Amino acid sequence: MSEPVPRLEERCCEEPLMTTSSDADTLIARYDEVRSHTETLAAPLSPEDQTVQSMPDVSPTKWHRAHVTWFFETFLLAEAEPSFAPFQDTYWFLFNSYYEAVGPRYSRSERGHITRPGAHDVGLYRGNVDARVRDLVTTMDGGMLDKLSATIELGFHHEQQHQELLLMDIKHVLSVNPLQPVYAGSPLPRSEPDTAGWVDVEGGLVEVGHPGGGFGFDNELPRHRQWLEPYRIADRLVTNGEWMHFMADRGYARPELWLSDGWAAVQAQGWSSPFYWTELDGVWHEHTLHGTQPVDPGLPVTHVSHYEADAYATWAGRRLPTEAEWEHAVVADGQGDASVAGGNLADLQTFHARPAGPATGHLRQVYGDCWEWTSSSYLPYPGFHPAAGAIGEYNGKFMSNQMVLRGGCALTPPGHARLTYRNFFPPGARWAMSGVRLADGGVPA
Amino acid sequence: MSEPVPRLEERCCEEPLMTTSSDADTLIARYDEVRSHTETLAAPLSPEDQTVQSMPDVSPTKWHRAHVTWFFETFLLAEAEPSFAPFQDTYWFLFNSYYEAVGPRYSRSERGHITRPGAHDVGLYRGNVDARVRDLVTTMDGGMLDKLSATIELGFHHEQQHQELLLMDIKHVLSVNPLQPVYAGSPLPRSEPDTAGWVDVEGGLVEVGHPGGGFGFDNELPRHRQWLEPYRIADRLVTNGEWMHFMADRGYARPELWLSDGWAAVQAQGWSSPFYWTELDGVWHEHTLHGTQPVDPGLPVTHVSHYEADAYATWAGRRLPTEAEWEHAVVADGQGDASVAGGNLADLQTFHARPAGPATGHLRQVYGDCWEWTSSSYLPYPGFHPAAGAIGEYNGKFMSNQMVLRGGCALTPPGHARLTYRNFFPPGARWAMSGVRLADGGVPA
Amino acid sequence: MSEPVPRLEERCCEEPLMTTSSDADTLIARYDEVRSHTETLAAPLSPEDQTVQSMPDVSPTKWHRAHVTWFFETFLLAEAEPSFAPFQDTYWFLFNSYYEAVGPRYSRSERGHITRPGAHDVGLYRGNVDARVRDLVTTMDGGMLDKLSATIELGFHHEQQHQELLLMDIKHVLSVNPLQPVYAGSPLPRSEPDTAGWVDVEGGLVEVGHPGGGFGFDNELPRHRQWLEPYRIADRLVTNGEWMHFMADRGYARPELWLSDGWAAVQAQGWSSPFYWTELDGVWHEHTLHGTQPVDPGLPVTHVSHYEADAYATWAGRRLPTEAEWEHAVVADGQGDASVAGGNLADLQTFHARPAGPATGHLRQVYGDCWEWTSSSYLPYPGFHPAAGAIGEYNGKFMSNQMVLRGGCALTPPGHARLTYRNFFPPGARWAMSGVRLADGGVPA
Amino acid sequence: MSEPVPRLEERCCEEPLMTTSSDADTLIARYDEVRSHTETLAAPLSPEDQTVQSMPDVSPTKWHRAHVTWFFETFLLAEAEPSFAPFQDTYWFLFNSYYEAVGPRYSRSERGHITRPGAHDVGLYRGNVDARVRDLVTTMDGGMLDKLSATIELGFHHEQQHQELLLMDIKHVLSVNPLQPVYAGSPLPRSEPDTAGWVDVEGGLVEVGHPGGGFGFDNELPRHRQWLEPYRIADRLVTNGEWMHFMADRGYARPELWLSDGWAAVQAQGWSSPFYWTELDGVWHEHTLHGTQPVDPGLPVTHVSHYEADAYATWAGRRLPTEAEWEHAVVADGQGDASVAGGNLADLQTFHARPAGPATGHLRQVYGDCWEWTSSSYLPYPGFHPAAGAIGEYNGKFMSNQMVLRGGCALTPPGHARLTYRNFFPPGARWAMSGVRLADGGVPA
Repeated sequence: MSEPVPRLEERCCEEPLMTTSSDADTLIARYDEVRSHTETLAAPLSPEDQTVQSMPDVSPTKWHRAHVTWFFETFLLAEAEPSFAPFQDTYWFLFNSYYEAVGPRYSRSERGHITRPGAHDVGLYRGNVDARVRDLVTTMDGGMLDKLSATIELGFHHEQQHQELLLMDIKHVLSVNPLQPVYAGSPLPRSEPDTAGWVDVEGGLVEVGHPGGGFGFDNELPRHRQWLEPYRIADRLVTNGEWMHFMADRGYARPELWLSDGWAAVQAQGWSSPFYWTELDGVWHEHTLHGTQPVDPGLPVTHVSHYEADAYATWAGRRLPTEAEWEHAVVADGQGDASVAGGNLADLQTFHARPAGPATGHLRQVYGDCWEWTSSSYLPYPGFHPAAGAIGEYNGKFMSNQMVLRGGCALTPPGHARLTYRNFFPPGARWAMSGVRLADGGVPA
Repeated sequence: MSEPVPRLEERCCEEPLMTTSSDADTLIARYDEVRSHTETLAAPLSPEDQTVQSMPDVSPTKWHRAHVTWFFETFLLAEAEPSFAPFQDTYWFLFNSYYEAVGPRYSRSERGHITRPGAHDVGLYRGNVDARVRDLVTTMDGGMLDKLSATIELGFHHEQQHQELLLMDIKHVLSVNPLQPVYAGSPLPRSEPDTAGWVDVEGGLVEVGHPGGGFGFDNELPRHRQWLEPYRIADRLVTNGEWMHFMADRGYARPELWLSDGWAAVQAQGWSSPFYWTELDGVWHEHTLHGTQPVDPGLPVTHVSHYEADAYATWAGRRLPTEAEWEHAVVADGQGDASVAGGNLADLQTFHARPAGPATGHLRQVYGDCWEWTSSSYLPYPGFHPAAGAIGEYNGKFMSNQMVLRGGCALTPPGHARLTYRNFFPPGARWAMSGVRLADGGVPA
Repeated sequence: MSEPVPRLEERCCEEPLMTTSSDADTLIARYDEVRSHTETLAAPLSPEDQTVQSMPDVSPTKWHRAHVTWFFETFLLAEAEPSFAPFQDTYWFLFNSYYEAVGPRYSRSERGHITRPGAHDVGLYRGNVDARVRDLVTTMDGGMLDKLSATIELGFHHEQQHQELLLMDIKHVLSVNPLQPVYAGSPLPRSEPDTAGWVDVEGGLVEVGHPGGGFGFDNELPRHRQWLEPYRIADRLVTNGEWMHFMADRGYARPELWLSDGWAAVQAQGWSSPFYWTELDGVWHEHTLHGTQPVDPGLPVTHVSHYEADAYATWAGRRLPTEAEWEHAVVADGQGDASVAGGNLADLQTFHARPAGPATGHLRQVYGDCWEWTSSSYLPYPGFHPAAGAIGEYNGKFMSNQMVLRGGCALTPPGHARLTYRNFFPPGARWAMSGVRLADGGVPA
Repeated sequence: MSEPVPRLEERCCEEPLMTTSSDADTLIARYDEVRSHTETLAAPLSPEDQTVQSMPDVSPTKWHRAHVTWFFETFLLAEAEPSFAPFQDTYWFLFNSYYEAVGPRYSRSERGHITRPGAHDVGLYRGNVDARVRDLVTTMDGGMLDKLSATIELGFHHEQQHQELLLMDIKHVLSVNPLQPVYAGSPLPRSEPDTAGWVDVEGGLVEVGHPGGGFGFDNELPRHRQWLEPYRIADRLVTNGEWMHFMADRGYARPELWLSDGWAAVQAQGWSSPFYWTELDGVWHEHTLHGTQPVDPGLPVTHVSHYEADAYATWAGRRLPTEAEWEHAVVADGQGDASVAGGNLADLQTFHARPAGPATGHLRQVYGDCWEWTSSSYLPYPGFHPAAGAIGEYNGKFMSNQMVLRGGCALTPPGHARLTYRNFFPPGARWAMSGVRLADGGVPA
């Protein structure tokens, strides 16, 4: 996409709602856990893999590894280290993503032109900052620690966002290679028989938004009331097999199913299937982090844009849920606490959406398979105010021309998803692991 | 603008909610009134003026005159004339705006390449269709008339929309001409002293959307409930003088005031003032349909994009109202019935926003000065369904990447504005007569 | 074409080689003849036709009419009128084509946005300047007349260039109209039987370039020596029928026939036939100024780019002639004096290439059918120096990225073509009336 | 540059004029020498350095290393190996540069998206092909060797072209890096005092083109006669110091000095100095392969486009030489045999143009400093015919929209430059090591 679109990584975060770990040892253990997870994800990638930017939306792996490090260096070390000096002056410039207040920065679309520092040099940078962070945390007094722990925890969530982006981006990098490289050798999940159903939700004057009592980004606030008419929501995601019916019914060739901008995208970009699908000898195949494989009809469809999700819902005689409907349905279904949710959140071997499995009467595939497009534009909640300073200035500024996605996906790191999380992408974006859950009803009496 | 954006003219309409004029004579009188108003607006324009498309968003005057005629020919005469034949086969193709179901159509961006039919030929086309419509209406039986009167009334509202577009578009055409042509010789309104104030609104579980009992487009339906926290709304529009303060305070140079996409637009397009402003010898001038004139600080600012409106509100420490807040505030203020509203709705000599005048304790400048940007994306109301067939298929399809504007403007024809009317444009659009009304409050308790 | 290419009209001219008419009456008679010819060509065109710019290369008819008038006003009246004042200040800006030294100018690509002055206003401008020129010429003394007659004659040739451009451009304007308007009602010429042959030319150390003794542009100078090996040149132009063989032999689908840039153009622009050809119900038709008609296999192919001409020659196992070969062949054939040439130079009823007619042993279709692509880049002759001042500064600056065409075409005004005339266009241009004459031989012994 | 321009690497070559090494041992020694030189040049580069494509014109180092290997595999091994199989099927596709006849190929502009094979994998590919070539050459009989030695020698020259391209390209890759990486640690040459002078050349009917008796590309043929008027040519290249005078005299701001397309490039791309110059704290610095250094006024100016070279010559009241003038001047000066030329051809430690040194009465800096722009378009010599087959099909196809450069430069490998060598680039290209030598005279008597 040529247009300068807001991007997942360019979101940030205000001071967390509450400090959840103020003890130095705990903080360092958590720091090491988050930081080492990034390196685990990068481990299968060669220096060349880590260098390339295959389209403007994508950032190189080594850039992600350096940028999250820069975040700790800038917002923690530069604030608190007694005699701070940057590891390298030029890194300050190279690895700033979009913080206008921090100074000039290297052009985003040219991140793939930077060969040095190399992947190994970035490792040295990470090691240096890690040592300094540990040193800082263990030597500071309790008052200072209390004050900085919010920034540190923000750094954790920031790095987790980039862990997901790193996987999204390397998936695209590898997809343009005719050698069809495999990122993870473990096999793709296989589909199992399942029955689709609906969950009825009563609605009324409900509350949405972060309730307090744990970490959240500023865009999840304030918690507020919203009126919902009674509606129902699908108990699982739309599958590849169902999508193939849409395609067979000429779904990509019928303008009456599409939003006007969506139809323009279909024609301008020649869409005729989900993003990573290719037809080989008459069989649809899908590029995945586990290699290129025949499309499994029982797995959820992924890498479709909002436009495609909307057209599919129109074709199916349904619609997408609003984000309030989505959030309230999950609460009503008893899955509001993502931290206890099952799914594949903890499964570091599978980087793909998984089958719904047998019907249970509850909402399936909520947190760990695909981000779910909603029909809601990404707008501020009533009473929203961005936080002060460079760190907090930036959530509100992406609130235009984007649609909200809810849930989480197979690339989301363990512990990162939550009920009130508002992900967002432009309606034409396809490189996130995005899927579709249908809704119905909600008509005023 | 290079992007294929939905456009005002590309909206349409479902069957009206209720037939308001079923008697043939009344219908013809109304028909003649609407049709002749179009010709009145085009009268000051030369054949050359009527031919040019000065940017892709703009359509030539003679295209508007022909297209609204084509609408009656296609949706009325082709349906009901005993032995229908199009006036000219090629017109069928040339003057279809965007109706996919009606067949192929001439490329929108090349409407300015069509020299023939000329302005005079379009007049002949109009005369032919007018005669046939009158003939049809006066000779059909009552049942048929009842059946078709809805389509005819839709044609009235459709033609009124294009009357406004015709003015918006010719304003742009004339603006690119160094000769600074004047469309209307009457002088611009002058500002008068006024005091800005706030109107407090209680909120609660309110109803928004068309209540029935008169004409409305399908996008105003269904009427539905929405929760509003208490808020307040400015009792007049932001003025040119206030906007100059924003500019003097480097409003166009401070990224922290802007949405990310807005800031990108500022930089890519070099915005540093409202659309039609030019600095001549140190004095800001404004291109208007009454000629190029010094900017009057007391008149409402117009021709600003949503991005600019949002940045201004941020700078002012306020925000834009949601469309529900706007609609409910007008109802609460007792101005829900636009047909009795004052303003300059009936003033055909003034094609410009007018001063607010003295404070009254009520909302001023609601319907006849500037369309007012809201903070609401243009999305379907809960339970919205587009009407069936070619006529009705098309309102929903523009519901992406656009923001809602409310009220009406000095170019809106008499009788066309109404409380629940949802106008919409992409957030970067500036050639509509769009202005700013601030809001505040609305924070959850 | 989006690229800013040099264009025919943007050529100019140095002081003529010799004043050929210094007597005032003769000069005025010639002036009236040239000026009235422009109006004769514009007469069939409506105000709307005269306003439109159908692509960036094209200028509106009324712009041509005004620009050639501006030329006399700027370079003659402003120089010599006792108390000069421009007819309109803004015209000075609007109708400057590209003369940097004369001041700023209106953007070329937006000439079609200017509705005023209208076609009629341009007529008034022409009348005013005509009267002033006549007045000036009849009242000045002989010395002054001698001094200015060169500029006046240059104005004649300049206006003649624009007469051809006016026809080229309006041909394109009318081509994009689905109504298929006809510019000239007289019928197209029909082909007659002919036999193609070769003319052998001896070569050696020949002279090329303007010999003096009449008007010429500065790019035709200096006359200089050039070595030519013996070669031969076709005695007529390539025909539509021959071009159809090329197409049938997949000429537009075989990269090995094309220059690399040519092949890129074929793919990027989807070329599969000459510019104005369309297939209707299986029959090739050609848009002409006489209407859209079936392609006549015996007429010369026209509106092909240099890339196509080169690919055709490669396909035919031949090549294009160099400009020196072309010029010398015409001299050797005895047709060096264009003023005595036959052809359709004087035929104002036919705006199309005509059949070659029976073989005569001489070169046919040299001056009045199609401009003939050569294999020569448009470069300065050895020793070339542009003339001084605004008028003369501008021939050399177009000497890059263009190819030379020789001869003349059916749109060239009577008396304008000559042996040493160097026309030029970018190799991808197709809207000039350009055709192909093959050559062969020329290999060093 | 956005346009699809022909590029140096996309040139190839017909069968050499004469086999110069038919003995197997000699051939293998030469093979090893050429091949190992490539690896020597790549040795200082990290895997990341070798992967990046910093603009569409640039190819990654590892792509160059693989492509020249593919050339031997395709045109030698696939032709002659008894049981040929490609090293990797996908390499066949990935490393074809532009040979349409060999099959489809990977998009040039996306060469930088390919992370695998990595730099090390390319080394394995090279080793495999090297072993197979040596095996083939040592085991084939004399007749076969005679037949194939031409292809092998062509492979040498092809690989040498890519050695120069590899350096040009990596120079650009490193230039976009704020870390200012250094490719070669040896210091830049320093200027010495010199005096500029002219060499007078008599001209007449001279011969140009390859005389036979050694290797040459097909575009150097046929040798042919050309008439030259007496002229003179500068005895050294234009220096940085002289270029600074041009800049100080507003050379980049005066349209009258520029070709029209050149002026458009100045404005569109914001040129205000040679390509690799940057002003740091008021001092001009130059990016070189030896690091970023202050501009040395006595060294030749490099990395200027043809447009800049032409504008400079106009400013200086001179002109560029034609390629025939250049070639004949070198012959007349006694330096026709490049193999005995001095210069820095053999100096593998210096990757930059060097000072002219003291005047000698002869032409200085002919072969080993900068390619010299001529005023000649790159066109076929009279009688030129491309060779048959995939190898030979491709020199002619680049003969449009390019200008000829003569001589050689500091990046040209030893033994690769020669008198009749025709290098070529589009007139706006700046990333080749191109400089300026002035000429004068040549005016017909």
